Parts: sequence; structure tokens; C-alpha cells
Amino acid sequence: MKLQIAMDTLGGAEVMRLLERVHDVVDIVEIGTPLILREGLAPVRAVKKRYPELTVLADTKIVDGGRLECGDAVAAGADIVTVLAAADDATIQDVIAAAHEKNRFVMADLIGRADITRRAEELLALDADFICVHTGVDAQKSGRTPQGDLKTLVAAIPPERAAVAGGVSPASVRQYAALHPGIIIAGSALTSAQDPRAAAAAMRAILQEEDCA
Amino acid sequence: MKLQIAMDTLGGAEVMRLLERVHDVVDIVEIGTPLILREGLAPVRAVKKRYPELTVLADTKIVDGGRLECGDAVAAGADIVTVLAAADDATIQDVIAAAHEKNRFVMADLIGRADITRRAEELLALDADFICVHTGVDAQKSGRTPQGDLKTLVAAIPPERAAVAGGVSPASVRQYAALHPGIIIAGSALTSAQDPRAAAAAMRAILQEEDCA
Repeated sequence: MKLQIAMDTLGGAEVMRLLERVHDVVDIVEIGTPLILREGLAPVRAVKKRYPELTVLADTKIVDGGRLECGDAVAAGADIVTVLAAADDATIQDVIAAAHEKNRFVMADLIGRADITRRAEELLALDADFICVHTGVDAQKSGRTPQGDLKTLVAAIPPERAAVAGGVSPASVRQYAALHPGIIIAGSALTSAQDPRAAAAAMRAILQEEDCA
Repeated sequence: MKLQIAMDTLGGAEVMRLLERVHDVVDIVEIGTPLILREGLAPVRAVKKRYPELTVLADTKIVDGGRLECGDAVAAGADIVTVLAAADDATIQDVIAAAHEKNRFVMADLIGRADITRRAEELLALDADFICVHTGVDAQKSGRTPQGDLKTLVAAIPPERAAVAGGVSPASVRQYAALHPGIIIAGSALTSAQDPRAAAAAMRAILQEEDCA
């Protein structure tokens, strides 16, 4: 299992400072949607330039203009680009084609979808590399978690192509890791930790334990 | 009816050059999603600074983090912020609250939704200011248009709160205008026209004719 750190609320300069401390204890760095909204693809470019070996995910949440938007994200250095599962299949196909042409990867985000099994099977048929169940920060406020959704997802697709996001914390990470998704995404639990490096290392240790369990 | 020009494929500097020519023959300037992806909110800030009286729409297509993302767009100067109809109601509520607190407006984008009538009624109840039927550029490639969707929408909500986007051109604009939505959005038909000013003025003249019909 890989650990993805989501950089959402930080500015680009703060991201670079945080990465100094954690780049070698995470597997994937996510440039989050709010950060892209504020600063565009510049943070993707900056992270990739400083850490060329690190896997960078651009959380573009593409819903239209698949070829243009994915092409721009890939050109900026993204290794993984996200598309919304809610997008038209034509858009998803274009995102995947644009990414695969450059040997990059696509994560489809099921945020807001109730029909997880059916849509995940369709996304797999469209050749999405990763499929993510995702309880948004706004939905988390009413106490929802992605635990049940992840169980549904790993029953529907090869678990190594599953990803999970939505309030994953040091306290809850083992229950997700026990389901063996390919990618576990943590945001504020790491970026707001008193010691983000220790928190990431502890989380990754749990992933490795469950990998060997 | 208002005419909205969508700036999607242009860079920020090109947007400023184009606006020199068309700012007084359009009602709303949209900073499109692909432009925001590339450059963040900087083009919103630049347009609002140069044309403070012009209504600026930031096509943020928010799907999570409603308060944060809408707050950032509003702070950059957006008069109208977009949220996806596919978003969780909690997100839509937060976007609307953040916009209305600052006397700004929210357009909910039905892109990818089949249940137009039901979702439009829900969005109206959530107090979305405008609700937009939208055939994406990728979906347009298979010949789809938003004409039927707009008919459905104006039957479900007050037409002045309806908007339409998706391949609207000088040739097709009258069929949309005849349904009297509040906002008609045109993108490449204007931005790629040989004479964008003449194209926008011609389109707006048709809107005015239908307003008086």
C-alpha cells in the first residue's frame, strides 16, 4: 500500500517547506484541488522540479475538456491526474488517453456517487488506473466516513487499484489498511500534525504491517 | 437575457486582450475551468481589477470544500461562483452561504446529471441563484446539445434563473433565446470568431430581440 499526502489548505511555499520534512516518508504527494484553484498548476511544476523521483498527483477533478486539462496537468509534471466519476464517459476516456500516451496514470474519484459497484466496474472497463472512494470534507462534518464505501469498492475491483480518502487519521488508518487498497490518502491528519514527519512515518509503518499481515 | 462569454482555452494575457475588444458587448465574463487549472485565480483578479463594473464568473466547478474554495474565489473578485450539481448538498449549502454572505451569486452546473427536473428543484430549494444545463465539450463531440435539457429546466424553475452552455453559436442562439433563460453562455463561438466583437454584438442583439418578442 502507498501513502498519499494531500496538500489542500497550504500555499505553494508552505508545501515546499513541509515536503522538506516528509518527502522520504510518503509515496505520493497530492497537490489538492483548493491549492490548484488558488495557484493553478504552478505547485505541481515546483514539486516535480525539486523532487523528480517523487510521484505527484494533481487533484484536478476533471469533469470536462478531458484531453486539454489532463494534457496541461501532465505537461506540468503530474504522474497521476484525477477525473470525477461523475464526468461523462467521453471525458473519462479522453483523460485516460491523454495520460496513458505519456505513461502517466489516472485516478477516478467516486465522490458523491452512490452506485459505487456499478460505476467502479465501468471505470475499470474504461481503464482507469485507480478508483477512489472519497468522503468529502463537507460530508465528513455529518460524521460520514469512507469505510463502508471502501469495503464495497474492494469487493468490486482488484484492491490494488482502489484508493480511499476522507478523514483518514493515525487512529483510523488501520481499519482502511486492513482492506488492502493500493493507495491510502491522508490530508489534514498529516499536514496539521504537530510533527508531520512522525505522523507520516507512523502511518506508513501501519501500512507496511498490514502489507505483511 | 444576459450574454456570458466563456474564456476557456485562452491564457490570462489573451483574455485581457480579447476583453479590450468585447467588454462592453457582453454581460458576464467567465474565467473558464481550464484557465483556472493552469493559472489559478489570478485571471479573475486581473479581470476584476481592470473592469470592476463587469460581472465576473469563476467557473470553479466546486465539488468539495465549499466554504474554502468559494471564499477564495470571492476574495479574488468573482461575482458568480460555480458549484457542481453532483456535489453533496452540504458542499452546495456551504458554497451558497459563503457567496451570499458577500452578496455574490452561485451558479449550479448540472453537467453530467440526467435527473434535471428533480435536481434543479433541489438546487432551487438550496437557494442557488442560477442553475445551468451544460453539455460538455467532450459530450458535444457525439452531437449532443443542451436544447432538450434547457426545455426541461425552464419548465422546472423560474426561467430567469436558468442558464445554458454547450456549443451555443450564432446559428443556434435563437433557439435557446426563445426559451428565455436568464443567462446564455457562449465560448469558442465568440473567442474563436474572426471578429469576436461583431459576433458577441450579433448574439446579444438576438437576445434583445427575443427579450422583446
